[in-house]
Amino acid sequence: MSGRTARRLITRIRLPEPAETGAPASTSRADVLAAEEPLGIRIAGQAVSLTMRTPGDDLDLTAGFLFTEGIVSSGADIAEIKICDGTACGHAGHDGAGNIADVRLSASTPRPAPRRNFLTTSACGVCGKASAAELSVSKIWDLNEDQSALPAGRLATMPEQLREAQRVFDSTGGLHAAGAFGPEGELLCVREDVGRHNAVDKVVGWALRTRRLPMRGCVLLVSGRASFELVQKAVLAGFPVLAAVSAPSSLAADLAQESRLTLVGFLRGGSMNVYTEPQRISLR
Amino acid sequence: MSGRTARRLITRIRLPEPAETGAPASTSRADVLAAEEPLGIRIAGQAVSLTMRTPGDDLDLTAGFLFTEGIVSSGADIAEIKICDGTACGHAGHDGAGNIADVRLSASTPRPAPRRNFLTTSACGVCGKASAAELSVSKIWDLNEDQSALPAGRLATMPEQLREAQRVFDSTGGLHAAGAFGPEGELLCVREDVGRHNAVDKVVGWALRTRRLPMRGCVLLVSGRASFELVQKAVLAGFPVLAAVSAPSSLAADLAQESRLTLVGFLRGGSMNVYTEPQRISLR
Repeated sequence: MSGRTARRLITRIRLPEPAETGAPASTSRADVLAAEEPLGIRIAGQAVSLTMRTPGDDLDLTAGFLFTEGIVSSGADIAEIKICDGTACGHAGHDGAGNIADVRLSASTPRPAPRRNFLTTSACGVCGKASAAELSVSKIWDLNEDQSALPAGRLATMPEQLREAQRVFDSTGGLHAAGAFGPEGELLCVREDVGRHNAVDKVVGWALRTRRLPMRGCVLLVSGRASFELVQKAVLAGFPVLAAVSAPSSLAADLAQESRLTLVGFLRGGSMNVYTEPQRISLR
Repeated sequence: MSGRTARRLITRIRLPEPAETGAPASTSRADVLAAEEPLGIRIAGQAVSLTMRTPGDDLDLTAGFLFTEGIVSSGADIAEIKICDGTACGHAGHDGAGNIADVRLSASTPRPAPRRNFLTTSACGVCGKASAAELSVSKIWDLNEDQSALPAGRLATMPEQLREAQRVFDSTGGLHAAGAFGPEGELLCVREDVGRHNAVDKVVGWALRTRRLPMRGCVLLVSGRASFELVQKAVLAGFPVLAAVSAPSSLAADLAQESRLTLVGFLRGGSMNVYTEPQRISLR
C-alpha cells in the first residue's frame, strides 16, 4: 500500500509585489501532495466498485462503503476483508498500481446484485423517483428517539480538535476530514481523504468494525460542505448531529429535516447555523 | 425548474466572546442555501444517469456529461436536449421534485450501452486495470501540440475574475465554480454547482454546445481542489492548462503529466504552484 502523501517536483512562481518591479520569479522544489489512488472492492472475487481514494484506513473505507451502500447491515455480515496490493493476490496482470479490497461476506449475508446508488437502468426508471424521499436510503435507526442535547460551546470546540488531529492536511492542503465525536465532545475517530464521501465512509466503517453503530448521542463533523450524500451517510450510521465547517445544500437540509437529523453548518469561530432540529443544541 | 438557491428558516447560535459572560445567543432567521436537486438524464427514453446538481445550465450539464462520459464526441452528435420539469412529460408519477433531461442523439450516433465510468461488473475486472493510464479516458486531442504560453501575471488575475462572476457564492457559500478563460485572460464562461465535477461538466457542455472544442490556448479554472476526475475532463475538452485555487492530488498530477496538461495549484495572492508542463506559463 502506498502512503497518504506523494512527493513531486514542482515549479513555484511568485509575482512581484505591486511596489516591486521585474518579472515573476520561478523556483523548483519538492512538494507534498495528497495521494489519490484507485481502490477496487471485490466481493467473493466479483468486482463491485472502483473508487478513487487516499490510501490508508482501507479496511474502514471498505466496511463503510459496504454499509452505506446497503450491502451489509452490521459488522457481523462481514467475515473478512483482505487488502491486496498486487504482490500476493495471484491474479495475472495486477500491476500493483492500485489496491484491491477482497471481501468475504458471512454465510448468511446475501450476495449483492450488481448495482450502484443513483444509477437507474430500467427504462424511465428515474421518472417519478426523483424526490428526496425516494432517493433517500432506508432508515435503520429512528433518530427521533435520540433526545440527546449537546451544549453549543462543546460543539464549537470540535473543528479545532479535528484540525489538530489531521495529520496530513497541513502538509498538502488537499484532504477532507471527517470526525466522530462522543457525547462529551471527545474526538473518537478522525479519517481523511481526497474524497469527502470517502472520509465519511471511513468513519462509518470504523464505527461498524468496532461495533459502535448506531452512533447515539454522537456528532459527525466534516471539514467542508454538507451535501445530500453526507446526510444520507450520517443518518444511516445513526448520528443525531451532522456538523459542517462550511455550507449545506438545500437537499441536505431537506433530507435532514425528514430524517430528524440535526444539521449544523458554518461551524466556525464561535458561531454556527442550525438548519434542522435545533432542540438538540443546548444553549446552557 | 427550481432556482439556484433555496430559502430556509434557520437558527443562528453565537457563543459569548471570551471577555463576556452569559449563555450562547440564539436567533431565528431566513437563510439562503445552494440548491441541490436530482437531474435524471435519459437517452431516447432510457434512463442513463441520475445526478445531484444545482439547477441551472441544465442543457450545458447534460451536454457536458454526455461528452465527458464518452457518449458523444461532438455537438453534432446531439440532436436535441429537452428539460422536462414534470409538468409536461406525460409520465404518470412524475412528482416534479426532480427534473429530467430528455436527450435525442443524432441518427448516426450509436446508443450507449448501459454503463458508468469506474463501475466494473465482470469478475475480477478491476484487477490489472487499476493504473492511471488504464483508467484514463481516450485522448481526443493531443495537448502536446498546444504550444501556447500564458503570462503568469495573466493567470494570477483569473481567480478574482471568477469570484466576481460568481453570482451565487457570496450568498450561500456552498457552490463550486468552474470558468473557462481565453488566451488573453478573458473570462469566457463561468458555471456553478454544489458538485465540483458538475460545474466542470457545465463548462465543457457550454463549449461543446457552442462548438468551441478543443479549448486550445484556454485555461480551465476551478475554485477548489483538482482531482484526477477534473484532469480527465480538462484533457477531454482540450484545455492545455487546468488551474485550481487549492491543492491537486497526486493522481491528478500523474495524469496531467501523462497527458501533457499544465496543472497549476494554489493559484492565489500572486503565487502559484506548477505541477506539470511549466513551459506553458511564461515569466515575462
